[in-house]
Amino acid sequence: MYDMTIRLQADSKSCLYEQIYEHIKKEIREERLLAGERLPSTRSLAEYLQVSRSTVDCAYSQLMSEGYIEARPCKGYFACSVEGLFSFGNRGENSIRRTKDGSDIGIRTDAKTSGQPSGSVKVDFSPYDIDMSGFPFSAWKKITRNILTEANGELFARGQAQGDPELRRTICRYLHSSRGVNCRPEQIIVGAGNDYLLLLLEKILGRHVRIAMENPTYKRSYQIFRSFAYDIVTVDMDEGGIQARSLGQEDVTAVYCMPSHQFPTGIVMPIGRRMELLKWANEEDGRYLIEDDYDSEFRYLGKPIPALQASDQCGKVIYIGTFSKAIAPAIRVSFMVLPEALLEKYLRDCSFYSCTVSRIDQSILNQFMRDGYFERHLNKMRKIYKAKHDLLLRELQGFRKAFDISGENAGLHLLLTSRKGEPERGLLEKAAAEGVRLYGLSDSMTKNASDSATVLLGFGGVSEAQILDGIAGLQRAWNCG
Amino acid sequence: MYDMTIRLQADSKSCLYEQIYEHIKKEIREERLLAGERLPSTRSLAEYLQVSRSTVDCAYSQLMSEGYIEARPCKGYFACSVEGLFSFGNRGENSIRRTKDGSDIGIRTDAKTSGQPSGSVKVDFSPYDIDMSGFPFSAWKKITRNILTEANGELFARGQAQGDPELRRTICRYLHSSRGVNCRPEQIIVGAGNDYLLLLLEKILGRHVRIAMENPTYKRSYQIFRSFAYDIVTVDMDEGGIQARSLGQEDVTAVYCMPSHQFPTGIVMPIGRRMELLKWANEEDGRYLIEDDYDSEFRYLGKPIPALQASDQCGKVIYIGTFSKAIAPAIRVSFMVLPEALLEKYLRDCSFYSCTVSRIDQSILNQFMRDGYFERHLNKMRKIYKAKHDLLLRELQGFRKAFDISGENAGLHLLLTSRKGEPERGLLEKAAAEGVRLYGLSDSMTKNASDSATVLLGFGGVSEAQILDGIAGLQRAWNCG
Repeated sequence: MYDMTIRLQADSKSCLYEQIYEHIKKEIREERLLAGERLPSTRSLAEYLQVSRSTVDCAYSQLMSEGYIEARPCKGYFACSVEGLFSFGNRGENSIRRTKDGSDIGIRTDAKTSGQPSGSVKVDFSPYDIDMSGFPFSAWKKITRNILTEANGELFARGQAQGDPELRRTICRYLHSSRGVNCRPEQIIVGAGNDYLLLLLEKILGRHVRIAMENPTYKRSYQIFRSFAYDIVTVDMDEGGIQARSLGQEDVTAVYCMPSHQFPTGIVMPIGRRMELLKWANEEDGRYLIEDDYDSEFRYLGKPIPALQASDQCGKVIYIGTFSKAIAPAIRVSFMVLPEALLEKYLRDCSFYSCTVSRIDQSILNQFMRDGYFERHLNKMRKIYKAKHDLLLRELQGFRKAFDISGENAGLHLLLTSRKGEPERGLLEKAAAEGVRLYGLSDSMTKNASDSATVLLGFGGVSEAQILDGIAGLQRAWNCG
Repeated sequence: MYDMTIRLQADSKSCLYEQIYEHIKKEIREERLLAGERLPSTRSLAEYLQVSRSTVDCAYSQLMSEGYIEARPCKGYFACSVEGLFSFGNRGENSIRRTKDGSDIGIRTDAKTSGQPSGSVKVDFSPYDIDMSGFPFSAWKKITRNILTEANGELFARGQAQGDPELRRTICRYLHSSRGVNCRPEQIIVGAGNDYLLLLLEKILGRHVRIAMENPTYKRSYQIFRSFAYDIVTVDMDEGGIQARSLGQEDVTAVYCMPSHQFPTGIVMPIGRRMELLKWANEEDGRYLIEDDYDSEFRYLGKPIPALQASDQCGKVIYIGTFSKAIAPAIRVSFMVLPEALLEKYLRDCSFYSCTVSRIDQSILNQFMRDGYFERHLNKMRKIYKAKHDLLLRELQGFRKAFDISGENAGLHLLLTSRKGEPERGLLEKAAAEGVRLYGLSDSMTKNASDSATVLLGFGGVSEAQILDGIAGLQRAWNCG
């Protein structure tokens, strides 16, 4: 068994349980406590440290909820692999592992989907839902209370158009450590949601934009660009996403893409493809890549995939991220990183647009990130989502004869494609008759939508019990599994 | 002396001090207690009601801060005139007095102004500042705490694109009772600031808009329309504002105006002029009037002026209001009332844009309005601003030989125009040399800005002591007063 030596400091600012938690986390992270090694029992550790057992219980339970340790029945507590766990280096340490960032996909309130018959829905596999049961209400309330208590008039006054400098510095550090994004806080614009940031981007890029989008793509972005004066070209993908050579012929000036985890296909763009895109953008002035890094927080296997922006040496990538998925849609905070040339245009032409996020909300978010709550929350949610993801895949084993499964190991949904080419519409209708709501790929397609034989199963918003129910329903509906 | 008979209810939900406060307020409002009548002393009322004296003190002090009663030294407490006081009829009663609504003018953080030399500023008469010392922090905190305590996951999920129905119902009632605006809650769109709402409006109105603006006008709106694909026509005003007949020749399709209190001139558009504008809009399909009702809350003399929308029978007015000035810029909530035809277009073409205000913030604001805090806050602020306004006018008496004073009796600034036509630039520079920052009318002018001999003196953000200091500085600077 691992030998635990913790020096507790009674006069420290953090309470005893936090000191134990921090110590063990560090031991695991720095691989002094290896995956599979057993930890002391809570009882023996409490005796050894001369603290109450509930203090140790509290530390262990926090570590479990974040996936650092696991309990094996009758055997005790064991360290887990840290592969894929978040650490933001709040103190400037950049020795960080993992992950992707987030976007504006929210809890679907206006759920309309092509060919989705109405009826009583027992299980809704929405790919847009997130799990709110894990939301750290108490931390959020505590921070809010503190901020309002300390609040002076300052916080109720209008702030800087780009967002509060402190929050931008925090986002900058987070982006660097978790996504490899290289930027100065001055390049960041904070806004109330991706939709708003795209509206602002339209003003920065000007009217004469011919934009390429992947097909299928994220539908709301497509609707937004269509509401602009933009020409839209949709480009088909192969297994590596879109190809730069299809852009040249089309006279495209901007590309909207999701290289780290394409929605809805889940395709990860290989590095070679990325370099081609960057090269294409660099061939002419005024060409830009809009990277929507919409759900990069949740990856369940392998190394994190850095942002496209991380490979950009020439200021060609406009990076957009959000907290809608990683925290909650309701907090309404997204951000955009502008390359220097566009920052100049923004400052000259658009900086009179005042910031759309209240300074109180910006302060709450800043403190949530700065004080480590965000890191803990992400690790906890990753564990919750991974459990659902694994369960869903296990339950879908029997479907593999009739369906190809794709989009695994990341994000909050899977795709099922009928091997026989059974049309999406029929699949959705049969599922609906059993009370199971699925979502068609055609929702995300900009052309040839009627050819779709693919449905999306989101697992963010369903419980494990609902997953079991829902899959049983699909077995009945489709006579398989 | 007025005979006070209050039936206190010990088992009531509201505490004793609130019952006393509510009773006296109602007596004054319904003119059973008339302006100038004396109230019982706090001591005698406390004895009479068998409550502690501090309970009565508390009620009287609240009534004083809201301008219902006043204390005269050595004489006691007297009822004030209710002319101009707010009452929103939270319980559906529409027997309401007054007022105007608000806009997006905020605390100036990026204070740049034409011809404004730098130097140490002792008094800043910014027309964009508001008085935050009167902000009801404790009420705001209390509501926030309650909402977060009761909060279920619901509030952290994304809500409706137009804003939460409950808040829209509350805004609808407020607009009807205080501004005469006729609309259904379904016509209201809540957004994070006027700038965002104008961005959305661009998508609703489409690209081919030729918009008329007043000259001078609110600069940021001008910048925003210029960043659109709009043709802009600026129209000079006479003492009644712009005239409909100047629009026809210009092929205009939309007019942006501030009929109830034009910024920066303070002109109130007479009813005849309003009817002409409405008639003009009604002559052709697709013509609209954009009413920015930016600071209608604060009027210090005479009857309230209803919104232009209140006179609109044909669905021609797009009404925009804000809480930036009436509550605080940082809360970032504005709203837009669409006429039915444009609502249809919005629902068809733009309703995928998600709401930019968090649901938590929407809930806080809703409760703030619904529970009477907003009404109290406005009455309190009106009193504070009226005192500053009156003091400033008094101190400017001696300036009348050399300057015309305009824009009195409403809003948060006055205008001084040199009778000799001394250029604005010189006036600003001399004032700055004495540590007094003023703002030039040329900031708001879209043409002939170099002709300006007018400066703006805002009194929202300065204290009474600063007003005295500042005017003394101006007397030295300009050799007058």
